[in-house]
Amino acid sequence: MSPPDESGSSIPNDYEIAQSVEKRHIADVVEPFGLDREDLELQGEYKAKVKLDAIERATAEKEDDGKLVLVTGMTPTPLGEGKTVTTVGLGQAFNHIDKDALIAIREPSLGPVFGVKGGAAGGGWSQVLPMEDINLHFTGDLHALTSAHNLVSTMLDNHIKQGNELDIAVNWVNWPRAIDMNDRVLRETVVGLGGDVTGIPREDGFILTAASEMMAVLCLADSLQDLKERVSRIIVAYDEDGEPVTADDIDATGPVTILLRDALKPNVVQTIEGTPAFVHGGPFANIAHGTNSLMADELASSLSEYLVTEAGFGSDLGAEKFMNIVCRFGEMEPDAVTLVASVRALKYHGQEMWPPDLDELEAEDVGMVRRGLANLDKHVRNLQKFGVPVVVAVNRFPGDTDAEVQAVIDHCKDLGIRAAESNVFSDGGEGGVELAEQVVDAAETPSDFTPLYDLDVPIKQKIETIATEIYGADGVEYHGSAEDDIERLTDHGFDDVPICMSKTFHSLSDDPSKKGAPDDWTLEVTEVYPSAGAGFLVALTGDVLTLPGLPSEPAAANMDIDADGTISGLF
Amino acid sequence: MSPPDESGSSIPNDYEIAQSVEKRHIADVVEPFGLDREDLELQGEYKAKVKLDAIERATAEKEDDGKLVLVTGMTPTPLGEGKTVTTVGLGQAFNHIDKDALIAIREPSLGPVFGVKGGAAGGGWSQVLPMEDINLHFTGDLHALTSAHNLVSTMLDNHIKQGNELDIAVNWVNWPRAIDMNDRVLRETVVGLGGDVTGIPREDGFILTAASEMMAVLCLADSLQDLKERVSRIIVAYDEDGEPVTADDIDATGPVTILLRDALKPNVVQTIEGTPAFVHGGPFANIAHGTNSLMADELASSLSEYLVTEAGFGSDLGAEKFMNIVCRFGEMEPDAVTLVASVRALKYHGQEMWPPDLDELEAEDVGMVRRGLANLDKHVRNLQKFGVPVVVAVNRFPGDTDAEVQAVIDHCKDLGIRAAESNVFSDGGEGGVELAEQVVDAAETPSDFTPLYDLDVPIKQKIETIATEIYGADGVEYHGSAEDDIERLTDHGFDDVPICMSKTFHSLSDDPSKKGAPDDWTLEVTEVYPSAGAGFLVALTGDVLTLPGLPSEPAAANMDIDADGTISGLF
Repeated sequence: MSPPDESGSSIPNDYEIAQSVEKRHIADVVEPFGLDREDLELQGEYKAKVKLDAIERATAEKEDDGKLVLVTGMTPTPLGEGKTVTTVGLGQAFNHIDKDALIAIREPSLGPVFGVKGGAAGGGWSQVLPMEDINLHFTGDLHALTSAHNLVSTMLDNHIKQGNELDIAVNWVNWPRAIDMNDRVLRETVVGLGGDVTGIPREDGFILTAASEMMAVLCLADSLQDLKERVSRIIVAYDEDGEPVTADDIDATGPVTILLRDALKPNVVQTIEGTPAFVHGGPFANIAHGTNSLMADELASSLSEYLVTEAGFGSDLGAEKFMNIVCRFGEMEPDAVTLVASVRALKYHGQEMWPPDLDELEAEDVGMVRRGLANLDKHVRNLQKFGVPVVVAVNRFPGDTDAEVQAVIDHCKDLGIRAAESNVFSDGGEGGVELAEQVVDAAETPSDFTPLYDLDVPIKQKIETIATEIYGADGVEYHGSAEDDIERLTDHGFDDVPICMSKTFHSLSDDPSKKGAPDDWTLEVTEVYPSAGAGFLVALTGDVLTLPGLPSEPAAANMDIDADGTISGLF
Repeated sequence: MSPPDESGSSIPNDYEIAQSVEKRHIADVVEPFGLDREDLELQGEYKAKVKLDAIERATAEKEDDGKLVLVTGMTPTPLGEGKTVTTVGLGQAFNHIDKDALIAIREPSLGPVFGVKGGAAGGGWSQVLPMEDINLHFTGDLHALTSAHNLVSTMLDNHIKQGNELDIAVNWVNWPRAIDMNDRVLRETVVGLGGDVTGIPREDGFILTAASEMMAVLCLADSLQDLKERVSRIIVAYDEDGEPVTADDIDATGPVTILLRDALKPNVVQTIEGTPAFVHGGPFANIAHGTNSLMADELASSLSEYLVTEAGFGSDLGAEKFMNIVCRFGEMEPDAVTLVASVRALKYHGQEMWPPDLDELEAEDVGMVRRGLANLDKHVRNLQKFGVPVVVAVNRFPGDTDAEVQAVIDHCKDLGIRAAESNVFSDGGEGGVELAEQVVDAAETPSDFTPLYDLDVPIKQKIETIATEIYGADGVEYHGSAEDDIERLTDHGFDDVPICMSKTFHSLSDDPSKKGAPDDWTLEVTEVYPSAGAGFLVALTGDVLTLPGLPSEPAAANMDIDADGTISGLF
């Protein structure tokens, strides 16, 4: 147990809570939802992958899919708002009001686990188990993706060294290397040193595996064949004439798909209350589309009345992309959105100083909460533009006062928005019953989901729609190669696809220091490039970090394991 | 099926043979050897890890360990001699002569699988299954090792960036990064470019995961606690005063051990005839000790009458290290050694030209075979020096003639050496019955195993013993930092450990172009450094490649997978 807190009582940490629960065999957990033991590839007793033929059968059998509930959040703060906790807790809460529900979340990346973030498997009494496995190697999907990504890099540089038959321009390689580790010094490197034997020296860099197009490809594929076709289309470089060179051109399609054969199968585990949870895929939401795999969503929504799924960061990033990209590719329609807010995050956005003083957020300050509501309101309006009903979940933390929480609820009611306090961290599903009831009420309301833009409008119009409608910009300016990029992509006929914006998650705007709901600003787009495998165009705005670093005291430094295998410091 | 050969019949490849066999549930495979289902962590139906408490129980219960048979080979040639095939086939053959036997081999690395080598799971009717899983991600051990290795690198560079409290000298970092991919351009790199934000630029490089000390540490650890202690001792850099900085000094012990928690548990699979095979760990034999994990060996020899285990490369590398390092650490004694030879390899060593002409080896040429016997004889003499009986296995290939095979057998008999033809590739265990009988005869002969040197003699004496007794050198010359290294290591009291020679595997000498049994030469040692976690000193001789590259036509380029998941091109 952890040291006693100020009140003298001992508060167990997430790992201790997780260890205190008796897990059921995963085959027993999923059996009521129509998956047999033969449908599973077991990895121990508590983790399994679902076989592809079982997915085909399940999705073919079911006529009506279940209701789809997306969980997103207000603009993230360093304090954490509890989006995954709310997703897991809401899924559990459905079972307290006699609704079948499944959960789908992204799988953690080792980088953040050893950095600042710690685990990403929910927390308290709303977490997925076994949390230590899920936060470490889990079923090896991230490792398979890292290998697949780097096999492409290796074959590419080997092609260049072995005569460069495709005439690849070494300064136009746009396939970096990948690592699942917050290893800052690999951001910018020079490779190929050492003379003739090792090949051509060139500038290179590493990105986090979660930021790789390979991750996006895996999460958008709906079959092994589709995965293979997406891999084959990935653009890895340009030749001296400026023509794209694909993964297929360097013969990487087959071996890369082989490496991803098992990673494609969704993983299923259980929550602390025994609700099945799919934990599969984890693309960045600030450079890719930011939601778990389409296959997990399609399978889960075919098996259950309700599917609760989570998108990364705020409505401007993961949720916008879920609506405009994922739902379009997967022919899905969300029936309700849960928007996670916290008193602390509202105070953060309501505080009038930069950089924010986190200590100042501790004392009760209803005024500061109210000033932060501008951020929440903008996210509500964003989501309403897709024609889907919104429910605000106020995820309660220990220091929050009743007055502060009530101020948020009252504000939402005044605007005609459903809202509920959520105590799923401390109370599990029971703490989310009111939220679940509101979500059911919203999801059963007929809705009129529409993506925000049509695919056949010009690239610039799509970017400008997102910038003005979602981010609240006055307009868009194009710098760097952006204008040329757009012209070239349009000429190549690669303009009728969705746009995946690459933008900071720290602000609704492209400036991480702007809190609340910034106005009077223009979005600056510096580059537009195709993620041809994923099937979208990425528009870069500002600096987006694709390989984080460790802080001065990394979480790793406090982790330990004893001779019996008991882990400490992994929360 | 593959295309018909010249005779018009269709020869199935390894993958096709593997697919034609009905595998049994792995729990049923190991049950006769005393492992229950509860002792296993299943990964699907055909792969499992053995839980650590089951290993403790099994090794504590058994009073007499089974007989230990080491398989090694003559100096490797590009043609492949079939050492793993012989290991697997011999293990199977024991069951044809009413002896219980288990097998222990190393796990493949992805690098070679996608390069030239193809799979490393045996072949024909002597392979381990499921070969495609074993050759790809298997149970994730290699990935865990890569992550563990790179977490150390990341924490080290982060320490330097965040103030460098330990005063680490950036030019004295001796912990490279690791990757499990034959990615030549990563051999020599510069990292940390991009200015203040990313840290201090420095020269760096990547090694193959199998060449990492982390792999050696995993394979020599005999418990979780021992693993942790070995990790803590790894020397990752030196400070400005020349004092060693360990993994523990940078707080990496705990998180690294956590990452290796599951990788430490031996993997068990089955051969094509249903014999249990442990496939666990795969250190390079030219820079590390080159045999599978000690834990797998200890477990397997406690469960069975016979354990057949394999060492990398020839008697000069894997076998010498197994005898002098692994047996010493594990308190094991080999009862017999099987030395794998092939007619083609003998011809290769008997051919009087450089570079060798591989086409010239196809026609019958008993004279050329006889000229190559000098290499075989030297390996025999090397092994006899350890006091263990030797059995030569002539692994027969389709083109070998009876006269060629008989010439080898006769030669051995003339020298009083046990020898047998082996047809385990084409005939499975049945093809190795004569070999197995000879091995039993040898193993039941009382032997007098002794390591070649005592640990308490000076470092130079140990190096010189290996050089003269095993390699056939006239003596040793020390260049570069070697003299200083030896003096410093002796002063630090790190001189009473075994020596792990880093030497080319292409020759008994340190010159890869010297075939046969070279004489009249002097071994040149350029550097001696401690692998403090593994518990030995590494002596570098010549250039040893720690990160291979892909050939102009990598094996990967011919691999494919169809929509049903059937793989081709992975042999």
